[in-house]
Amino acid sequence: MTFDSPPRFPQGFRCASRNCGIKKTGRDLSLFVSDVDAAAAAIFTRNQFPGAPVVLGRETIRGGALRAIVVNSRVSNVATGTEGLANARRMAAAAAAEVGTNAGRVLVSSTGVIGVPLPIEKIEDGVRGMMADLVADPLAGAEGIMTTDTHPKAISTSVGDATITIIAKGSGMIEPDMATMLAYIFTDATLPAPTLDRMLRDAAFLSFNMLSVDTDTSTSDTCVIMANGLAGRVDEGAFGDALQAACIRMTEILARDGEGATKLLRVTVRGAATVEDARRVAKSLVNSPLIKTMAHGADPNVGRILMAIGKCFDVSIDHDSVLASINGIPVVENGMRATFEDARVRETLAADVVDLEVDLGAGTAEATAYGCDLTAGYVEENAAYYSS
Amino acid sequence: MTFDSPPRFPQGFRCASRNCGIKKTGRDLSLFVSDVDAAAAAIFTRNQFPGAPVVLGRETIRGGALRAIVVNSRVSNVATGTEGLANARRMAAAAAAEVGTNAGRVLVSSTGVIGVPLPIEKIEDGVRGMMADLVADPLAGAEGIMTTDTHPKAISTSVGDATITIIAKGSGMIEPDMATMLAYIFTDATLPAPTLDRMLRDAAFLSFNMLSVDTDTSTSDTCVIMANGLAGRVDEGAFGDALQAACIRMTEILARDGEGATKLLRVTVRGAATVEDARRVAKSLVNSPLIKTMAHGADPNVGRILMAIGKCFDVSIDHDSVLASINGIPVVENGMRATFEDARVRETLAADVVDLEVDLGAGTAEATAYGCDLTAGYVEENAAYYSS
Repeated sequence: MTFDSPPRFPQGFRCASRNCGIKKTGRDLSLFVSDVDAAAAAIFTRNQFPGAPVVLGRETIRGGALRAIVVNSRVSNVATGTEGLANARRMAAAAAAEVGTNAGRVLVSSTGVIGVPLPIEKIEDGVRGMMADLVADPLAGAEGIMTTDTHPKAISTSVGDATITIIAKGSGMIEPDMATMLAYIFTDATLPAPTLDRMLRDAAFLSFNMLSVDTDTSTSDTCVIMANGLAGRVDEGAFGDALQAACIRMTEILARDGEGATKLLRVTVRGAATVEDARRVAKSLVNSPLIKTMAHGADPNVGRILMAIGKCFDVSIDHDSVLASINGIPVVENGMRATFEDARVRETLAADVVDLEVDLGAGTAEATAYGCDLTAGYVEENAAYYSS
Repeated sequence: MTFDSPPRFPQGFRCASRNCGIKKTGRDLSLFVSDVDAAAAAIFTRNQFPGAPVVLGRETIRGGALRAIVVNSRVSNVATGTEGLANARRMAAAAAAEVGTNAGRVLVSSTGVIGVPLPIEKIEDGVRGMMADLVADPLAGAEGIMTTDTHPKAISTSVGDATITIIAKGSGMIEPDMATMLAYIFTDATLPAPTLDRMLRDAAFLSFNMLSVDTDTSTSDTCVIMANGLAGRVDEGAFGDALQAACIRMTEILARDGEGATKLLRVTVRGAATVEDARRVAKSLVNSPLIKTMAHGADPNVGRILMAIGKCFDVSIDHDSVLASINGIPVVENGMRATFEDARVRETLAADVVDLEVDLGAGTAEATAYGCDLTAGYVEENAAYYSS
């Protein structure tokens, strides 16, 4: 699987972003538009306090078709009650008027601080005229949806004549369990909404739902796919594979840019009795503060690996045949510390990616989880983050 | 409930500690002795890679009686295979010879680095002659069991004519789920082993099992109670209450001394449909990195509270009647941000204890969890911690 550099849009998709005055500086409003109606599917956060855009989005996506997505950053419109929902509807209506469609064809997202009223007038004023700014550069739209992200995130790849493009944001409050923070997927392939829905859920199962920066599930997670059909039919199997690979790549990009992160932590668990066991142990390792600080501190700590496996109380483990390796170097054999050169492991740990591989010796199922190291930067960012 | 200052031992208990050469400096070996055999009960970690002392301890405690506890710090004797278990037995035998009892009456604990052979000769040499050092000061024994603890931990209180004393350690790799890192409870009350066992489990359910510094369950958690009967019979109800209060107090002390912590974070959840729901939400809040950094950063962040409640997907919540307060000041009402003065909340957050109270509006069950703030100090300590 190769990704385009720079990323590009499928046929018939464009976007724009600008500053509408919610952030003091920097873009805070993005519009993504298809030239024609697109089949669409979406998944949302399972958090029990979903934001108003998520509540509205669940209603909107029932139609199975979208023309545009409008997103603001800095204020999430969560815990804002009936007024919040009314504001989300006004945001959809304003974008629909600008695009020339109806509000039921516009998906709304908001990301940022929770519990603050949405400055809806700024958004209504801001969206006016954005159609004139539309460009074919996905990074332009990616910029307007950033919060604590250190860079805009967009990738694209080809499947037959079609293109898949993912634009996403996300950096903290990330253990989606249903979708990532915000991920918008665009394709010009022809695919009906129910197929898109199934493919999106399958891909998210292996990608965004295996991502965790800090175990904290946001109230705004949204992952949407739009397929406008301008490139015609594609092989469904190939499309599904490409979508999955692209979602995994974007998951790695999001993990690597986790708040304060200096490296990607990728944990693969094999030899599990069930996929559920493999996912649970992989998540346990990727979420353990002691594994995360180890990845940061670059000190190969075998005990912490065994601890984080062993604290999954109900998972089947063949204790005497457990294996583990750090960046390909065996550090646990037969459930005990292997003989290895500390210095060699420490050397590989200095890399940008830490690959932890574990075999539970209890079966054939496997799973991979994606996270990042835990640093003083995470603490500083979140101890200081403007919140009220 | 009042606690003695300084803490003291029940009748017939004494302890000693010394440096036997495992740590470069500082005490690394402690011995706790009762003048007579004591009824005893214990609970251990549920981690699937328990240390050799835990494996041996489960066997020892079946006898229902103990005369002594011997503990070394810095090396945990975990993931050390059959040689590790043999070393744990040698450690029990050496202490038994010194005390003048048999090895089946001695409980062994080790705490520290995982996966390193126990320096058993140093311990065997070190324990020789320790009976001559025995003193009636619990803090002397508490010193020898410390790892990253910043101070020795011991408390005592009275029940009728009897005394309850708890000596404990624990600072990182703490979400016990069965016991705390290491907690030794001594009393001169007369109580049979099965009663002690039940009382210990009841008390741990509300105290040590509701403690989390970093969600990481150690492979060495051990909590033991010894009752030597020298003070005679006590009222069982009063004893159980006192034991519970003392365990909760020690839990708070352990949480406050969590690695890098600057304050105790205490989360009480009320109005839950079940105790299990209340415990789950309390743990979710106390473990959330975004709540922990908020407590550290002293910025009242209502959104993070709702997020951490809402990510308990399967818990019953009456969303529109959820309440939350920070140090007594209402910050959430009817599931939405309440009107409050940021500055006033920020002022109370500067205190040594942050009390978060939540009402789910779904029933009458409640639970309290104990943790600490997340600081750059935790990251530094664990990114640097000697590990191999």
